[in-house]
Amino acid sequence: MKTIFIGAGNVAWHLVSLFSKNKDLQITHIWSRKKENAESLKNKLNDESIKINYSIQQLDFSKTDVDLAILSIADGAFETVLSKLILPKNCILAHTSGAQPMEMLKLANQNQIKNIGVFYPLQTFSKAKEVDFSQIPFCIEANDKKIEEKLTSLAKQFSNKVFQVSSKDRSILHVAAVFACNFSNYLWTISEQILKEKNLPFDMLKPLLEETLQKALEINPSNAQTGPAIRKDEKVIEKHLHMIEEMNLSNSNPHFSQIYKLMTESIQKKKKLDLT
Amino acid sequence: MKTIFIGAGNVAWHLVSLFSKNKDLQITHIWSRKKENAESLKNKLNDESIKINYSIQQLDFSKTDVDLAILSIADGAFETVLSKLILPKNCILAHTSGAQPMEMLKLANQNQIKNIGVFYPLQTFSKAKEVDFSQIPFCIEANDKKIEEKLTSLAKQFSNKVFQVSSKDRSILHVAAVFACNFSNYLWTISEQILKEKNLPFDMLKPLLEETLQKALEINPSNAQTGPAIRKDEKVIEKHLHMIEEMNLSNSNPHFSQIYKLMTESIQKKKKLDLT
Repeated sequence: MKTIFIGAGNVAWHLVSLFSKNKDLQITHIWSRKKENAESLKNKLNDESIKINYSIQQLDFSKTDVDLAILSIADGAFETVLSKLILPKNCILAHTSGAQPMEMLKLANQNQIKNIGVFYPLQTFSKAKEVDFSQIPFCIEANDKKIEEKLTSLAKQFSNKVFQVSSKDRSILHVAAVFACNFSNYLWTISEQILKEKNLPFDMLKPLLEETLQKALEINPSNAQTGPAIRKDEKVIEKHLHMIEEMNLSNSNPHFSQIYKLMTESIQKKKKLDLT
Repeated sequence: MKTIFIGAGNVAWHLVSLFSKNKDLQITHIWSRKKENAESLKNKLNDESIKINYSIQQLDFSKTDVDLAILSIADGAFETVLSKLILPKNCILAHTSGAQPMEMLKLANQNQIKNIGVFYPLQTFSKAKEVDFSQIPFCIEANDKKIEEKLTSLAKQFSNKVFQVSSKDRSILHVAAVFACNFSNYLWTISEQILKEKNLPFDMLKPLLEETLQKALEINPSNAQTGPAIRKDEKVIEKHLHMIEEMNLSNSNPHFSQIYKLMTESIQKKKKLDLT
């Protein structure tokens, strides 16, 4: 399959490497809004045959021999890029986003695209960090059974966990992932900042962080809740709120005590409901 | 060292096992408000010589030959238990709490206790789950240099990470741990609930959860933030809020959309400040 990549961000960075190791796939073009991103990705692959496109005017691939186009760009860029993207008639266009409905892709080929699908790896990617694709769940969707099969069998070459997931379910997974990952990371950032403020090493918390996650994965988070909130330890809660306010962190971010209060209240409310 | 344990909860459960494997230590008594807890802990050790005390009247150890008393009880029970606890004059009394100042222990022996300290393992414990103590940071404090040395050398028999930490710093670590662990676990619970509501398996998120933590540990959470909030992807944020409200989760917990909004706002505020 002759494949082009539209996008050279974190997800594309890893997928391009993955695809390049597969003999059935040939990457012919990489497009990125930023030329240097496409070029560093090309350099990473060390493949001189790959062509680089980079301006919004260079999205017309109608004369290119291409079977599969992977759209891997920021959600906010979908409309602009799709309004300019033109692919050969039989080319499959698949995006890699958790948040975008498949139907968005119909904007390609001036609303005349035929074969569309989704090829969404449910994982967080950073260029600097290698990932093991075999454990990453792939969410596949297509507007046609044959295309779904093609994308599924492609994903199965990389991962043991391939699922057919509708746009609606994918967006549910995405919002759940925002709570579980983006917001958790932010809570760790708050911890990091509190400790930094007091010259204490964040490293001291690392074994606790690892064990907390391992426990939640083993017995499920709803069975793993501990801490002053669920114990209704009002004295400790009050002390913590007082400490946060005293710490003068409110200068850098007024939300820390609000977050502490809201999370505590919500944990306590949940417990009450579970008991009824 | 002849040792008694006051408390038979999650922390005591693991510390007692740990202590029982050390030949220099001899556990003579276990006290718990609940007789059955002390008994199951004794049964776990399979040591008939251990005595069980269980009522609030059985906290007078003044006639007992004991060198070290470990107080490992809920924060809310400190005052009640300490007001009744009486130890031999030269016995060291150390507690295992993240939240309680060392000075609280002065309530023991009717305010006549001499040797007090803290022996706090910075970890989350559940009875059912074994932990590797060698990686757990121990926070040690004492009101006397010699006692500090004793508790430090004791902790070093179990862990490679032993620190002298003041009550003030320990309470900072504790509040940071509440954000990083208790509140993160609650966010995972929200995810679990969202997915359950829509019959999607929480398992699909597990690789993402593991990678998110690994990345935060490697490059620090403040460098690892991703997601719609930090990208200021207002369309996705609006869509998510709409979805959460539509999901009717508000019946079971009215805070999910509030938490989404507040976390998003705080992440965005933080980013802005870092750029100035």
